Amino acid sequence: MTDFKVIAFDADDTLFVNETYFAEAEEKFCGLMSDYLSKQSISQELYRVQINNLSTYGYGIKGYILSMIEVALAISENTLGVAAIEKIIQYGKELTQKPIELLDGVAETLEALHGRYKLVVATKGDLLDQRRKVHNSGLGKYFHHIEVMSDKQEIDYADLIQRLEVKPEEFLMVGNSLKSDVLPVLALGGHAVHVPFHTTWEHEKIHHQIVHPNFYNYSNIQEVLKLVP
Amino acid sequence: MTDFKVIAFDADDTLFVNETYFAEAEEKFCGLMSDYLSKQSISQELYRVQINNLSTYGYGIKGYILSMIEVALAISENTLGVAAIEKIIQYGKELTQKPIELLDGVAETLEALHGRYKLVVATKGDLLDQRRKVHNSGLGKYFHHIEVMSDKQEIDYADLIQRLEVKPEEFLMVGNSLKSDVLPVLALGGHAVHVPFHTTWEHEKIHHQIVHPNFYNYSNIQEVLKLVP
Repeated sequence: MTDFKVIAFDADDTLFVNETYFAEAEEKFCGLMSDYLSKQSISQELYRVQINNLSTYGYGIKGYILSMIEVALAISENTLGVAAIEKIIQYGKELTQKPIELLDGVAETLEALHGRYKLVVATKGDLLDQRRKVHNSGLGKYFHHIEVMSDKQEIDYADLIQRLEVKPEEFLMVGNSLKSDVLPVLALGGHAVHVPFHTTWEHEKIHHQIVHPNFYNYSNIQEVLKLVP
Repeated sequence: MTDFKVIAFDADDTLFVNETYFAEAEEKFCGLMSDYLSKQSISQELYRVQINNLSTYGYGIKGYILSMIEVALAISENTLGVAAIEKIIQYGKELTQKPIELLDGVAETLEALHGRYKLVVATKGDLLDQRRKVHNSGLGKYFHHIEVMSDKQEIDYADLIQRLEVKPEEFLMVGNSLKSDVLPVLALGGHAVHVPFHTTWEHEKIHHQIVHPNFYNYSNIQEVLKLVP
């Protein structure tokens, strides 16, 4: 048993459904652009532009939609009707209004940990959108605060842990992304739980296995409770 | 003399130039749309849509650009060429790459306060963009961290002050907006310094005078040093 002081939870696809909604939006976008290219090519191009724009826009819905508009202009070679652009903007607004679907075991886990550890949300994405989701999920009461991180690399976690005024070994991160929630935290000497979600965004995939004494792979978030007294 | 523990600084138009760049982008946008409406009408419409979208997009460049695209579609009644949309996206990307122009007295003030108080940046806008600006300004070394707030109302400051674990009377906010940096802080029992910038976004304007024992109106940020021993 380790004496954790802070337990941080990723939000999207760890606490509640997210990737599913982005996949739906992408599906609609591919439909909208189907006169120009195959679904697969559109998806590839969207992914390429999104990654290319990450350093400009960061993560989240607004940057996603701006990238979508950019792709729409590019693959239609500027012949697209503006009505299509209007639709893309609408996809974005719809994304900000999606219902919050808690993942299995989340509420029970937070209820059990609340009051015993400082719980924070550590997430990428749009600040306002993440606040809205945590608030509307009813989970806000469990968290000390929300950390919206511009990225989730080692340096970002180092900053976070320093700001939280704990030692890395007192920090436990729980999330669905091996790349963003697990590897950088382990590298710093922290602990990390991976709870996979059924869909993983291409950008978050890694292709090797993790073996580490501070790493825990669980199928349900409630198993986190095994790590605490 | 009050015993401050945290001094928080607004970023845009308090530490460095911002509104000027948004005004430039708006100028270009009005030029782009000048076939459809007068400059004044375009500006009014952009403002209306921006405010209307605040609860969806929050503050910052990305939401601004999405609103601009929306206005472009609306006032052209969907007859606009997509090349114009491409230009608008470009305006946004340019905004994320503007040079950082420190305002007069900022570096001297932070240098004098650094190490004696916990200094934080408390700002609205895009997380990534605010980080970039604080980092590129060379001011990052003075700050404990950056608080990107989804809004700057009383409740947001109450959250912030609680998270910082200080009492309101130990909190001093410095900013260029009476509405966002001064009034909510005074209402909570904190202290606030107003350092006006030559341009104020319509949304940040208030039309009454503030008289309050914890309120200080200075023409140069360096005057903040008068408040500390």
